[in-house]
Amino acid sequence: MCQLLGMNCNVPTDIIFSFTGFATRGGRTDHHSDGWGIAFFEGAGVRHFVDYQAAIDSPIADLIKRYPIKSRNVIAHIRKATQGQIALENCHPFVRELWGRYWVFAHNGDLKDFSPELNGAFRCVGSTDSELAFCYLLQELRRRFGDTPPALEALTEALRELTAQIARHGTFNMMLSDGTALFVHCSTSLHYIVRQYPFSTAKLSDEDMLVDFAEVTTPKDRVAVIVTSPLTTNETWTGFLPGELKVFVDGAPL
Amino acid sequence: MCQLLGMNCNVPTDIIFSFTGFATRGGRTDHHSDGWGIAFFEGAGVRHFVDYQAAIDSPIADLIKRYPIKSRNVIAHIRKATQGQIALENCHPFVRELWGRYWVFAHNGDLKDFSPELNGAFRCVGSTDSELAFCYLLQELRRRFGDTPPALEALTEALRELTAQIARHGTFNMMLSDGTALFVHCSTSLHYIVRQYPFSTAKLSDEDMLVDFAEVTTPKDRVAVIVTSPLTTNETWTGFLPGELKVFVDGAPL
Repeated sequence: MCQLLGMNCNVPTDIIFSFTGFATRGGRTDHHSDGWGIAFFEGAGVRHFVDYQAAIDSPIADLIKRYPIKSRNVIAHIRKATQGQIALENCHPFVRELWGRYWVFAHNGDLKDFSPELNGAFRCVGSTDSELAFCYLLQELRRRFGDTPPALEALTEALRELTAQIARHGTFNMMLSDGTALFVHCSTSLHYIVRQYPFSTAKLSDEDMLVDFAEVTTPKDRVAVIVTSPLTTNETWTGFLPGELKVFVDGAPL
Repeated sequence: MCQLLGMNCNVPTDIIFSFTGFATRGGRTDHHSDGWGIAFFEGAGVRHFVDYQAAIDSPIADLIKRYPIKSRNVIAHIRKATQGQIALENCHPFVRELWGRYWVFAHNGDLKDFSPELNGAFRCVGSTDSELAFCYLLQELRRRFGDTPPALEALTEALRELTAQIARHGTFNMMLSDGTALFVHCSTSLHYIVRQYPFSTAKLSDEDMLVDFAEVTTPKDRVAVIVTSPLTTNETWTGFLPGELKVFVDGAPL
């Protein structure tokens, strides 16, 4: 199994604090050492970093921990391989284009007897059930809505149906973003927190690191962080219910 | 206008030497400071780095200059904006998936009155003529060959026709790779060199840097480097002819 980290904010925010704790699980405080990846939206563009080294040993992960890339939507993943060999093409998150927007996807779980027919519009490059689920999701969105992207409400409803359908094949904790919203589906384990004014201090559980968010934010900032298991020891995280799909926009769940 | 750098090899090779000289043109020895990018194939996967900062100031470019990522096909680009604002989504190279492979594309030049109809299979995220040309190329390849990727010869023939057609709209120096071959079309300025046994020493023209390739290669290695203007002062580079399309496989032009 793998672990997921997502961030959705109302202003571009860096993810250094959360990623530092999360990346430590990629080989040190946990055993997810079969690759990792992170994607940041910046406007319509995406910065996409993947590596088949453990996050704890990766020079690129080291850069991410030091270089404050500011983004309103981020998805990160550390991998413990279940299906698909350890190779760059099997590292999450995956990126594709639909409706003139990039879509970013990452998955934690394992799907059994999942072999939907792909019509060729989106095909897998690697050999994971996860990339197959992503290609299927985008194909079905395009099939339903054609060439015109739907409003958020209709898109959410479609994703609610599609994720429930995929989740019948196994564990399907997933994060998906088109740069405007972050869609999160939980099968087994996901937690979130919304940080907003008045900000306080947070302490990582995986690293000896403390940050006073009041010092690095303005009163208008709002940031939602979503993760497989809580990243901090002194904050209250909210667990997702099994089967739940939440949509985060501007730093809060709708 | 922009500058292009490509590398095609018979064994995975790092591009640190060439990229160091090339990146210096992104703001120091030349004025291409409106962003940069580089994509490395590793197996079927792609590492894709883009930045709207000048290459000379970018912490990510700095990492690439220090971290030996080994690849058989690399495409890099430094940008001097002509069409499209300075934004991440307008930085080359661009990446899309077709036939279950990633395709990487970068362009130097400027296309006028170029507005082909896109059928929706590949749409632009940004606002450059370059990304439009890339989407059009992939759309037309899929239209010609359907869901089955053609053999290299047929693919080359199709690209020869399509690039010639696009080049009627202006300057179209471009590099395209699916990870197995590197396709290079020249309108105005591109040069290449094939380095193979016996290897010798090369000296960068843009930086005070010298490398003895005999020390870092084996006798079987073969590396083709293709670039807008020659990177070294003591080697013989071959210029492309205007309108020429060359295909590089295993470190040499076919």
